[in-house]
Amino acid sequence: MTLNVVGHGVAYREKVSEFPWIDNPAKTFLASSFAVPPFPKRPTLGYRNISISASSMSGAKQLAMPENTIEQVELLTSVNDAHGGVIVNIEQPMDSGVFAPLLKASISEWRNQEKKGVWLKLPIEHANLIESAVKEGFRYHHAEPNYLMLVYWIPETADTLPANASHRVGIGAFVMNSTREVLVVQEKNGRFKGTGVWKFPTGVVDEGEDICAAAIREVKEETGIETEFVEVLAFRQSHKSYFSKSDLFFVCMLQPRSFDIQKQNLEIEAAQWMSVEDYIAQPFVQKQELFSSVAKICLAKSNKDYVGFSPYCSTTSSGKRSFLYFNNQDLKHIGASDKQQ
Amino acid sequence: MTLNVVGHGVAYREKVSEFPWIDNPAKTFLASSFAVPPFPKRPTLGYRNISISASSMSGAKQLAMPENTIEQVELLTSVNDAHGGVIVNIEQPMDSGVFAPLLKASISEWRNQEKKGVWLKLPIEHANLIESAVKEGFRYHHAEPNYLMLVYWIPETADTLPANASHRVGIGAFVMNSTREVLVVQEKNGRFKGTGVWKFPTGVVDEGEDICAAAIREVKEETGIETEFVEVLAFRQSHKSYFSKSDLFFVCMLQPRSFDIQKQNLEIEAAQWMSVEDYIAQPFVQKQELFSSVAKICLAKSNKDYVGFSPYCSTTSSGKRSFLYFNNQDLKHIGASDKQQ
Repeated sequence: MTLNVVGHGVAYREKVSEFPWIDNPAKTFLASSFAVPPFPKRPTLGYRNISISASSMSGAKQLAMPENTIEQVELLTSVNDAHGGVIVNIEQPMDSGVFAPLLKASISEWRNQEKKGVWLKLPIEHANLIESAVKEGFRYHHAEPNYLMLVYWIPETADTLPANASHRVGIGAFVMNSTREVLVVQEKNGRFKGTGVWKFPTGVVDEGEDICAAAIREVKEETGIETEFVEVLAFRQSHKSYFSKSDLFFVCMLQPRSFDIQKQNLEIEAAQWMSVEDYIAQPFVQKQELFSSVAKICLAKSNKDYVGFSPYCSTTSSGKRSFLYFNNQDLKHIGASDKQQ
Repeated sequence: MTLNVVGHGVAYREKVSEFPWIDNPAKTFLASSFAVPPFPKRPTLGYRNISISASSMSGAKQLAMPENTIEQVELLTSVNDAHGGVIVNIEQPMDSGVFAPLLKASISEWRNQEKKGVWLKLPIEHANLIESAVKEGFRYHHAEPNYLMLVYWIPETADTLPANASHRVGIGAFVMNSTREVLVVQEKNGRFKGTGVWKFPTGVVDEGEDICAAAIREVKEETGIETEFVEVLAFRQSHKSYFSKSDLFFVCMLQPRSFDIQKQNLEIEAAQWMSVEDYIAQPFVQKQELFSSVAKICLAKSNKDYVGFSPYCSTTSSGKRSFLYFNNQDLKHIGASDKQQ
């Protein structure tokens, strides 16, 4: 099972197998099977002894041994992934002087076994081993606060290891009350600081957070207003907006369920209900194409002349949920009727 | 300018300023201003001498000096970001024994200056410095193949540094010809290997690649078929499908512009035009909710009973493009008429 998951973790970039919902229908709507850590958690000394006959070591350039002799070689503990590669998860402290030769010998053995990608996960407490891995030819794949993942491609063929996460996701919330006023804020920071510009509440979708949940959360955090998610009205993809990453920004319509604004003081300078006409009349909304386009979409929606994508929620037996967003005006009966969260 | 961009690079997680298209209308449709590297490229020795009066060092816990004396202190070269933090980009080789005390003294000085977040960018060739930074209290923020970004939060208040990219993005392509046959493939790898299941071409959207361009590319790569992008019919968000990351998968409709299949041999076992009824009749399509839901949407679209989101392209003066996807049947005149790529 864990290997299985690891397999997904290291699915090759060009292979659809890195999309479990495509390659494994049984998991299509259930992320549950992927909710376990991608690496086995069993304790390990970090390396093991194996016997290798020299005659089988022809592919191991780093180790030279006379023909037909047997030699004890220490190797790092590894597990195979589902794509012809191996995964090494260093869990115990190790001196870099011990690690370097182990890694070198292990790569020789993996090359001999015709392995492809090598995944080396180094928890931050083992940062002392990074330099040795880099000297051995490893490159960085990704990092999270508490670990660094390095990769090494053994074959002569082109490296087809999957890329790291490529996008950040954000939301903008269009919230209109019964008197056609929209919920807007002025921020204490950012480019509009002190400009007097009123804008929709916006924010970042957290890793593991549903877009519809993030929109409700951000509106509540910034203005104290309770809302119900209605639709994704549009989305925009932009590039190079954060280091080298791309962004996906979803314009969401939400229905207010409360009306007394309690603004959040840390980020929000002011918040109010503003007539939609006054919002649209703001020069920056008029001048800037995205803002004017989004304003037109929101206005059409408020006049019931526009249909966006609604979230269709499916819950797995294990309680995991996943949302499919689509035009449910054109296609009303797509499955069970448990719409939304 | 660079500082400006750096500012975006380190926009605080909870602040909308990390979304340039929200906080800077002028840049809303143009990623151009963010297409420069987030760090200044000027050569630097990596550190500098400054004079600090001891009386101003009260906040610098690591340095103890008698009152009212002047001492030469070496500090790392840093640039301020737009959010009260600093950025250090080590460009020259440095011995870790030299780096460690420089970093310690610099943190003291930054604390004294009431700086917040410290961003330390270490190119992979300077992996020898990572351990010292971790010992000083830095954590990993993100890594790309050739560098590791570490961060350190100086204030007593909660760390509000922005998160790393959280999502991977994929596409599935619904391509139907004039005789109501859909373009399907069998893959050499992944869960469906050897199952005989026929599925839509799918793939990963590269960092910096537009969703509509990725769909056209994947269909061409896997089947050799030329297509024109029509609409995003639906999208699905799932979690924990790749390490801890979330996924966004876009179901796209494309119009074929060529019909002779030239399958790609590396990943594709077989490719063909298959009657849409036969595709839908496949047991896995019937059994699995996402597949049956997507099949219903595609069928409705093929009967012209469904409207998805179309890409609206805007090109900046510098040639950068960005797409807004929306229901252009309900809202035809959103701006200039330069639809699509």
